[in-house]
Amino acid sequence: MSDPKRAVVLLSGGMDSCVVATMLADEGYELNLLHTNYGQRTEAKELACFHALADHLGAARRMVVDIGHLAAIGGSSLTDERIEVTRADLESREVPSSYVPFRNANILAIAVSWAEVLDAGAVAIGAVEEDSSGYPDCREVFYDAFRRVVELGTRPETDIAILTPVIRMTKEEIVRTGTRLGARFDLTWSCYRSEGLACGECDSCALRLRGFERAGQRDPIAYVSR
Amino acid sequence: MSDPKRAVVLLSGGMDSCVVATMLADEGYELNLLHTNYGQRTEAKELACFHALADHLGAARRMVVDIGHLAAIGGSSLTDERIEVTRADLESREVPSSYVPFRNANILAIAVSWAEVLDAGAVAIGAVEEDSSGYPDCREVFYDAFRRVVELGTRPETDIAILTPVIRMTKEEIVRTGTRLGARFDLTWSCYRSEGLACGECDSCALRLRGFERAGQRDPIAYVSR
Repeated sequence: MSDPKRAVVLLSGGMDSCVVATMLADEGYELNLLHTNYGQRTEAKELACFHALADHLGAARRMVVDIGHLAAIGGSSLTDERIEVTRADLESREVPSSYVPFRNANILAIAVSWAEVLDAGAVAIGAVEEDSSGYPDCREVFYDAFRRVVELGTRPETDIAILTPVIRMTKEEIVRTGTRLGARFDLTWSCYRSEGLACGECDSCALRLRGFERAGQRDPIAYVSR
Repeated sequence: MSDPKRAVVLLSGGMDSCVVATMLADEGYELNLLHTNYGQRTEAKELACFHALADHLGAARRMVVDIGHLAAIGGSSLTDERIEVTRADLESREVPSSYVPFRNANILAIAVSWAEVLDAGAVAIGAVEEDSSGYPDCREVFYDAFRRVVELGTRPETDIAILTPVIRMTKEEIVRTGTRLGARFDLTWSCYRSEGLACGECDSCALRLRGFERAGQRDPIAYVSR
């Protein structure tokens, strides 16, 4: 029997999943934190943020999984040095070069495997549709379809909810929610390009900065060009 | 644009995926063969079979991916030495101890990522429902649900079919089909317990032996107790 208050939470080290984990902690879930390393440029910084957040949140268990095969497969500027991390174009409807093919299906599958073994009744992911970069696997319809796969692909007695608590939020709302709950934004990292000072120019930095600005909050991390 | 005659084929080294790869080769697909190692007991033997079959079939590309995190997660007799590989009970409707939680979603996700980067229009897997061990992720409804996830979770221009050509076959039909097409059953391995002589007693051996017997064919691999 799956425990509805035991959750596997995907925690990348970015601000969205930090807010998700903070929301679940606030709701009394037991947190089992999962971080995946897929050979992205800024992995060392993201992993440090993962452990710092796990310490702060009092995680019951933590797991780091190397999915470097996604880098070997290639196709994304996040993992392939030959593909440029483009400057942000927040108006574009194109799938950006940073898209890692079918990445979220890969990391959700790992999370569900772990959840099934732990008898956890929930898997939570910080996917954002409304104010996102246009990745196909960040859309709510994708998660609806994945819920059906989980229902059919696990043991009959397993019952795992796929939680996407920030999927309909704008970045501004995510900043407001996190601020209200005391989320440690200072322990998060979003920049796709750099591990020192954030570049402020890539898609991920641009979305983050706009979110803090609109929420009237100061982003506690340091940027190059401000 | 996805090439409909370029396929990523999951090739475990077992007889079902061997027949699937042979069927696709016969139909003129370009074969890109993917093998996953998840810390199962008989991995070295299965990997040797994978490479021998890839050589024989003239694979365009081959990839071996270590998904050892499924062993770390545990929960299956295939990867956890503390859980016994039980003797076959082909009449049971229980999910057997060899079930690796949500395994096929994990390996399909990797295959779809590779297919999207290769512009391959097909991913093929040797899942068998009718005459199987009762794994939830070997049922046709699971693949129907996964097709929807692939449609929604990849780029709009990507079009990847999930092929399950043997899912409705009995083991007997798989043996007959493979025999007709010249599948190299001598280069396959099914036993869950041993890498030397096959045990003849685990679920996988029992299903294989019954299939060859009913098809009136001799299994070319060597067993302990015959």
